[in-house]
Amino acid sequence: MAIVVNTGDDERFHGLHVSPDLDTMTYTLSGLYNPETGWGINGDSFETLQMLNRLGADTWFNLGSRDFAMHIRRTELLAQGSSLSRVTAQLTANLGIAHPIIPMSDQPVRTVLDTDDGTLSMQEYFVHRRAEPVVRSIEYVGASDAEPSPDFASALDAASTIIICPSNPFLSVAPILAVPGVRDAIASHTGPRIAELGSDVSAVGVAREYRGFCDVLVLDSQDANLADAVSAEGIDAAVMPTIMQTDDDKVQLAERVLALAADLENRRS
Amino acid sequence: MAIVVNTGDDERFHGLHVSPDLDTMTYTLSGLYNPETGWGINGDSFETLQMLNRLGADTWFNLGSRDFAMHIRRTELLAQGSSLSRVTAQLTANLGIAHPIIPMSDQPVRTVLDTDDGTLSMQEYFVHRRAEPVVRSIEYVGASDAEPSPDFASALDAASTIIICPSNPFLSVAPILAVPGVRDAIASHTGPRIAELGSDVSAVGVAREYRGFCDVLVLDSQDANLADAVSAEGIDAAVMPTIMQTDDDKVQLAERVLALAADLENRRS
Repeated sequence: MAIVVNTGDDERFHGLHVSPDLDTMTYTLSGLYNPETGWGINGDSFETLQMLNRLGADTWFNLGSRDFAMHIRRTELLAQGSSLSRVTAQLTANLGIAHPIIPMSDQPVRTVLDTDDGTLSMQEYFVHRRAEPVVRSIEYVGASDAEPSPDFASALDAASTIIICPSNPFLSVAPILAVPGVRDAIASHTGPRIAELGSDVSAVGVAREYRGFCDVLVLDSQDANLADAVSAEGIDAAVMPTIMQTDDDKVQLAERVLALAADLENRRS
Repeated sequence: MAIVVNTGDDERFHGLHVSPDLDTMTYTLSGLYNPETGWGINGDSFETLQMLNRLGADTWFNLGSRDFAMHIRRTELLAQGSSLSRVTAQLTANLGIAHPIIPMSDQPVRTVLDTDDGTLSMQEYFVHRRAEPVVRSIEYVGASDAEPSPDFASALDAASTIIICPSNPFLSVAPILAVPGVRDAIASHTGPRIAELGSDVSAVGVAREYRGFCDVLVLDSQDANLADAVSAEGIDAAVMPTIMQTDDDKVQLAERVLALAADLENRRS
C-alpha cells in the first residue's frame, strides 16, 4: 500500500521547510502523533518556539521542539539536493514506518486562497486567521509546472484499488488532482476507485466534484438519506460509520473500505 | 564598551549557522547561560537534538532546544541577506543586552587545525575529538579575504583602552588578530592595551606572542613569579587574582582591569 500526500500546504517557517500533511501522516504511522491536537508530536514542548519568539520571530504557527527536528532535517537534506520524495522516504524509514509515504510532487505546488481579506496561504488562512476570511477562489500555484513524484506515478500504474481518503476535497484532495496527469490517470484506472468523505462537506457536492474518476463514495451512516442523491450523480454510495474518534474507529473504517475494495475487485475479475 | 568576538569557530550543524563564541557571550550577558557547562542555555532540554538523532542526523555537537532557536533565527536572517553583525545586533537587542556584541568579521574565517588525525575544524577537534589529536599547525582559513566588521573597525578607531580578554591565545584571540588590519590597528593604538590570561597557557609564551601590540599583561597571582620574565619580553606585568569561578569573581576581575586601564589613561594624559 502506498500513501500519497498533499504538499499544497507546505510552507517555510523560520527558513525551514514545513510539510504539514506529510508530518501528520508520518507522526500518525510512527505512533508519535498527538491525538488531542491532531497535529504535532505527543508530549512535545514548545521551548524552541518560545525562544524564537523572544528572538523576534513571528510564531503564530505552532511548532514543537521535537517537531522542529523534522523540519530542520528535511530542510538540510533538501538543501543537499535530495528531492522531497527521497527525503520523505529517508525520514519515514528512520522512524520505522513500513508503508511508503509519498509526496504528490517533488515540485512546489502551493494552495493559495483568494479571500475578502487578501491572498492567503493555506496555513495563513486556516491557522493564523482561523478560517474566518471568506474564500472567493482557490488556486494551486505551480501545479501546471509540476509533475507527479516518481513513486506517485509508479503507484498510479501499479494500483489495484485507488482510495481517496477522508479529507477536505478542495484543500487536501484537489491539490493532488491538480498535478498534471493525475486526474486522467485516476479517470482511466480500471480497478475500483473509492472516495471516503469527512463529515464536514456536502456529500452530493463532492459526488459532483469526483464524478468521472470515482466509482463508490463512502457516506457516513448519518448521511444515509443522501445515498440516492449521490447515485443520481453517477456514483454508487456505500454507507458505513465514518466518524473516527479512536484508533479503533480508524482501523475499523480502513478494514471496511478495504473489504469493499476487495469485493469490487472480485466482481470485476 | 564594545565586545568583539571570535567567529573562527563558527560552523554549520544541521544546515544551521552556529556561532559558539557569539552565543556564549550572548547567553552570558543576557543571564541565560549555563554556569555548569560553560555553554548553552541554563535548563535547556535536548528534545530537538534527540529527535534529529532519530531522524538519522549526526548529533555529536550538543545543541539545546532553546539554543536551536538562536541558530534557526540567525540562519534565517543571514539567508535574508543581513550581515552577521546586523543579525547579532538584532538578536542581542531582542534579549535586552545593552553592550554591543560584535563579530570580528562579516566574512567567514574558519580556524582549521592540521593534526596527526587529519584536518579538523575547531569544534571537530575540541568537542568531537576532545582535543586529543596532536595539533601540528593552525590556519585561519579565509582570513586574508576578510575585513573587520564595520562596528569592529569603528570600535578600534574610537577605543580608549583595548582589553584582550582571558581566552586561548591561539584558538580564540589569534583568529581576530588574523583579520587584515586588526593587528596593525592595535599596534598603532595610542591608549592602553591590556591582555588578560587564562591559567592554562604559559604567560611568557603569550608575552612573546602579544609583543608589539600590548602594554600590560595581567598575570594570575599564582604566576607572580613570572612577572620578571614577562617584563623581559617588553611587556609590563600586573598581578591579580584571575581565576573566575563565580559571577562575583568575573565582576571583580573586570573592575580591577578597568581601574588599571583608567590609571594608565590618566598617566598618559
